[in-house]
Amino acid sequence: MTFTQRHFLGIAGLSKGELLFLLDTADSFREISEREVKKVPTLRGKTVINLFYEPSTRTRTSFEIAAKRLSADTINITASASSVTKGETLLDTARNLVAMRPATIVIRHPSSGAPHLLARLVDCPVINAGDGTHEHPTQAMLDLLTMRERKGEIAGLTVAIVGDVLHSRVARSNVLALTTLGAQVRLVGPPTLLPPEFRLWGAELHTDLRTGLAGADVVMALRLQRERQARNFLPSVEGYSRHFCITPAALAEAKANVLIMHPGPMNRGIEIDSQVADGPYSVILDQVTNGVAVRMALLYLLTAQGKELREEQAERVQKVSPPKRRVASR
Amino acid sequence: MTFTQRHFLGIAGLSKGELLFLLDTADSFREISEREVKKVPTLRGKTVINLFYEPSTRTRTSFEIAAKRLSADTINITASASSVTKGETLLDTARNLVAMRPATIVIRHPSSGAPHLLARLVDCPVINAGDGTHEHPTQAMLDLLTMRERKGEIAGLTVAIVGDVLHSRVARSNVLALTTLGAQVRLVGPPTLLPPEFRLWGAELHTDLRTGLAGADVVMALRLQRERQARNFLPSVEGYSRHFCITPAALAEAKANVLIMHPGPMNRGIEIDSQVADGPYSVILDQVTNGVAVRMALLYLLTAQGKELREEQAERVQKVSPPKRRVASR
Amino acid sequence: MTFTQRHFLGIAGLSKGELLFLLDTADSFREISEREVKKVPTLRGKTVINLFYEPSTRTRTSFEIAAKRLSADTINITASASSVTKGETLLDTARNLVAMRPATIVIRHPSSGAPHLLARLVDCPVINAGDGTHEHPTQAMLDLLTMRERKGEIAGLTVAIVGDVLHSRVARSNVLALTTLGAQVRLVGPPTLLPPEFRLWGAELHTDLRTGLAGADVVMALRLQRERQARNFLPSVEGYSRHFCITPAALAEAKANVLIMHPGPMNRGIEIDSQVADGPYSVILDQVTNGVAVRMALLYLLTAQGKELREEQAERVQKVSPPKRRVASR
Repeated sequence: MTFTQRHFLGIAGLSKGELLFLLDTADSFREISEREVKKVPTLRGKTVINLFYEPSTRTRTSFEIAAKRLSADTINITASASSVTKGETLLDTARNLVAMRPATIVIRHPSSGAPHLLARLVDCPVINAGDGTHEHPTQAMLDLLTMRERKGEIAGLTVAIVGDVLHSRVARSNVLALTTLGAQVRLVGPPTLLPPEFRLWGAELHTDLRTGLAGADVVMALRLQRERQARNFLPSVEGYSRHFCITPAALAEAKANVLIMHPGPMNRGIEIDSQVADGPYSVILDQVTNGVAVRMALLYLLTAQGKELREEQAERVQKVSPPKRRVASR
Repeated sequence: MTFTQRHFLGIAGLSKGELLFLLDTADSFREISEREVKKVPTLRGKTVINLFYEPSTRTRTSFEIAAKRLSADTINITASASSVTKGETLLDTARNLVAMRPATIVIRHPSSGAPHLLARLVDCPVINAGDGTHEHPTQAMLDLLTMRERKGEIAGLTVAIVGDVLHSRVARSNVLALTTLGAQVRLVGPPTLLPPEFRLWGAELHTDLRTGLAGADVVMALRLQRERQARNFLPSVEGYSRHFCITPAALAEAKANVLIMHPGPMNRGIEIDSQVADGPYSVILDQVTNGVAVRMALLYLLTAQGKELREEQAERVQKVSPPKRRVASR
Repeated sequence: MTFTQRHFLGIAGLSKGELLFLLDTADSFREISEREVKKVPTLRGKTVINLFYEPSTRTRTSFEIAAKRLSADTINITASASSVTKGETLLDTARNLVAMRPATIVIRHPSSGAPHLLARLVDCPVINAGDGTHEHPTQAMLDLLTMRERKGEIAGLTVAIVGDVLHSRVARSNVLALTTLGAQVRLVGPPTLLPPEFRLWGAELHTDLRTGLAGADVVMALRLQRERQARNFLPSVEGYSRHFCITPAALAEAKANVLIMHPGPMNRGIEIDSQVADGPYSVILDQVTNGVAVRMALLYLLTAQGKELREEQAERVQKVSPPKRRVASR
């Protein structure tokens, strides 16, 4: 199988086969970051642009490390240090970047759908690193990779996602990916933060943490966006924690070898107790490690494999007309 | 011919031969960014510092990509994230950077003349990436490269530069370069924004867009710095647009195959209409592509060629005294 | 001798032998930055993370250049552009970074002790790039390297450190290093800025510049943190300068070939006169050059040598069980 998507914009629309192929490819890249020399020449002479309109340590760093371990050149652009402040539209910025011949653009943007807009108008692969409250598909892939690493298979798992599901692009991408691969998803939180339309994907909604976690193989706490409280979605952060913080007691109902996950950054003591976050079932740091592998796999598939496909085409053309030698170096 | 300038501070003072040599060199670098592996070893083991005292996506990214495609190491320093906030003078900052042995310093600064000040006091090549309202010479070179690519020759072209000429370093550098190469330059805008001294360089001043564009081979719209309005240079942005926005109708007077240029970022609907910016005569994205080639050429000429000249000297010295072998690697 | 420290957190606790070994190693790295090709493959395929919670041009750039000249991949994280703004703790940030398998983390932090906290909880080497008012050990090493380069030996030198000693991590690290190597240290400044406990390390305290500089081999001016004034440590900046600015007149009492040092950035005319800063005895820019060598040496010792030690262990293990071949590249 090959991955024939030109972009990686979301989990929505990806088939079970594509998701599994991505996981298998990511699996094979995991080993590179455990070598002494964590570098392969795959993307040498390619430029990967990280275009971040929202602050992010983790995701930007993960993409940057992934690109560098593939020997790509990386360019970081953040909203605060860019001509974005001069009022240029996203599309003009992107077209200008594309004119500098990047191999791939990685974009994070506060507006849902921004990566899709970009992908329609530029001629290089686009990877969604989080758009508004819509999707964060590389996060879902690293979550799945971590679950599969520990549990062997996604199908048949019961995964409880706890917290502000309504505003969470992480939750959205995970629900799509998990249900496609045959996991049972439970969304757990206060009713104001549980969007009923998720039932259409086969997810269960739980407003009681105890029943939500009962028999779960995986518990994923979401980050509580504390600024939501001001917008009346939550009566109080304290009230939220009292009912939905993942504590050792709350885990009593889950399976014995439950996996504890969190996309980070954590609000310790609010959505997750430190004893749980740092405890023996936590795979929170494995998620981060797997994030680099997932992003290496995607950069490889979209960039290098794209090249191979284009070269296959070029070879077919060359059978007709004799090839011109490219100059190898100056 | 060789390029014997030590720095690249402005178009002022460069001869016709030097400008043409730069364009020819940039031409030869254009192909590298169209390869699959966009990298040559020319500046391996050299450090290029981008010292930006003003925000910039496009120019900083262009220099960074240019340096990386030459295999240089790049260091980005922006005013907001630097000890500049501790009140150190430009010169102390620069001397400190030079003490770390960079190959080249690229500087953007809000004060006209800052790069020249720098160049007098440091012993590495300095490239002006835009200084105040003075010059933006790499922009002019990429503009010329784009015109020459499409029109074959600069000499004899009629180029209309439209907008806030008074405050535009882009306009200033272009006027100097274009008139040196034998183009006819027209500066078009409201009288408050047209500095009469440009007549000394042979430029025509036009306060009417219609006559300004009549028969033009190239129309270059300048970015309107909207903050100027507050300083009474412009009665209103709307009034400006009504008279000077480059619209399809305004282009009726220009030559049939007129080139449309803009240094970016564009204020669409203010100084340029989207139909024009995205239309068939627009070469705005070619300008961006050529920007990388121009900057690669300059980094090469100032850095690598400088090395060759020094090595020639060293060889002459070695004929007198036997050479010491340098240790090749650790 | 080998350097068996896992981290480089401070001068405190390092032996005379270790300090001399570091200086010797740094000495051997100095030459790389004078080559045409300033790059050795030592740290190829390693990731060095610069985690800066305080702004810094000089130190961050120095570490970044040092890492790149060793062929490491570098990742810059600054507080302002990171999830630090989302309120994640230092430790969660660090653990997440470590999960991406960096070779080394370089940290600057406004809280004294932050690097030590980090080092206890992560499993990669940590280098202190300045923590609060505690230590700035790489600065002290580059200061010592500069003194030794010019004076031949540290032991027996009389070094006057002038200014706000109380708040200076530079002063603290220098006092520890200089007294360990047998130099005589004098701390010179207004009584409110001279912490008496430094006498325990054998330093002399001087509130009179004239007697403080009498017979000094080295004069190191500290940066005056002007914001201290508001906190009542200083009656006025002008008053400070009148009594403690290093002027040509003040140097009359020092030895004839006194060295003038400053960690930068300088407040010219406040703690140091420009005639002195730019004069024939100033080695302020040599300090900067030596900073790159010191940081290359440390990155090498902590990262690459660490690898060699681990490989030695691995070889011993392989004598027992047959080795698995690692895949060299993809």
